[in-house]
Amino acid sequence: MKNLSFLLLFLFFLVLGLLGPSMSLCPMDEAISKKINQDFSSLLPAAMKNTVLHCWSVSSRGRLASCPEGTTVTSCSCGSGCGSWDVREDTMCHCQCGSIDWTAARCCTLRVGS
Amino acid sequence: MKNLSFLLLFLFFLVLGLLGPSMSLCPMDEAISKKINQDFSSLLPAAMKNTVLHCWSVSSRGRLASCPEGTTVTSCSCGSGCGSWDVREDTMCHCQCGSIDWTAARCCTLRVGS
Amino acid sequence: MKNLSFLLLFLFFLVLGLLGPSMSLCPMDEAISKKINQDFSSLLPAAMKNTVLHCWSVSSRGRLASCPEGTTVTSCSCGSGCGSWDVREDTMCHCQCGSIDWTAARCCTLRVGS
Repeated sequence: MKNLSFLLLFLFFLVLGLLGPSMSLCPMDEAISKKINQDFSSLLPAAMKNTVLHCWSVSSRGRLASCPEGTTVTSCSCGSGCGSWDVREDTMCHCQCGSIDWTAARCCTLRVGS
Repeated sequence: MKNLSFLLLFLFFLVLGLLGPSMSLCPMDEAISKKINQDFSSLLPAAMKNTVLHCWSVSSRGRLASCPEGTTVTSCSCGSGCGSWDVREDTMCHCQCGSIDWTAARCCTLRVGS
Repeated sequence: MKNLSFLLLFLFFLVLGLLGPSMSLCPMDEAISKKINQDFSSLLPAAMKNTVLHCWSVSSRGRLASCPEGTTVTSCSCGSGCGSWDVREDTMCHCQCGSIDWTAARCCTLRVGS
């Protein structure tokens, strides 16, 4: 009887010992935040390598050319050798010279790779 | 007495059984890394949808036009129909033709949405 | 003997009590997901501040100028005051006017800061 009681007490403290380390993991929050921070620092540059600036040209007859919604005009090109242009309403190229036969807008957007 | 001892032993192993699964969660680090990786893969494309290239024009009289600090020149436009330009010191458009009345710089920056 | 048994029973429930809170942490997955989400929301904008659009010019003699692989053409500039250009095969500027002495491509790429 006495032996059994000692055994049980021994087992009990063994259990407490097993519990101990897992409880010392706290503050869990901090540990996980640290881990998220570390992983983020390596994941982001890797993911950004797949994020590229993608640009293409949209041409139209006349002195106006528009980029599709969700894209940005980075430049315009004009017929008749003209280099004077402005961007209207954020998405429309307007060539200013006298007689313009065509206008092209350079349209860009960010593309997130897989 | 013997019954009680058996009961206690039974309860003891029950506790061990409860402890078992939680201990099998280790290595916790790996599990959390995997989770961070998974969540990151879905969070980044969603967040990048709110990140856009934002461009606007800055015009000045004369043959020079500068973009504000923190932005990038993607193109220049010149008065007098001139299409010959270069970028000086990363942020300044310079139109090269003989008589230039105005110069415009197309200034771009990344904008992280909320 | 009876006392010892009571003591052991008391200790046993004490252990169960200690286990209780740690078990109520589940579902762990959800808690960690929530934490990842929160941390991501603050880490991304901070990291994106270090991500910039970087552009530079590449000049060549003649009517063609190419951007290096991995970059994007946002604009072209031409000699002889010419403002008529197009982009070929995504990376090559082509100036269209009659006599072109030089061509410059404006090449851009995303740069992830440290």
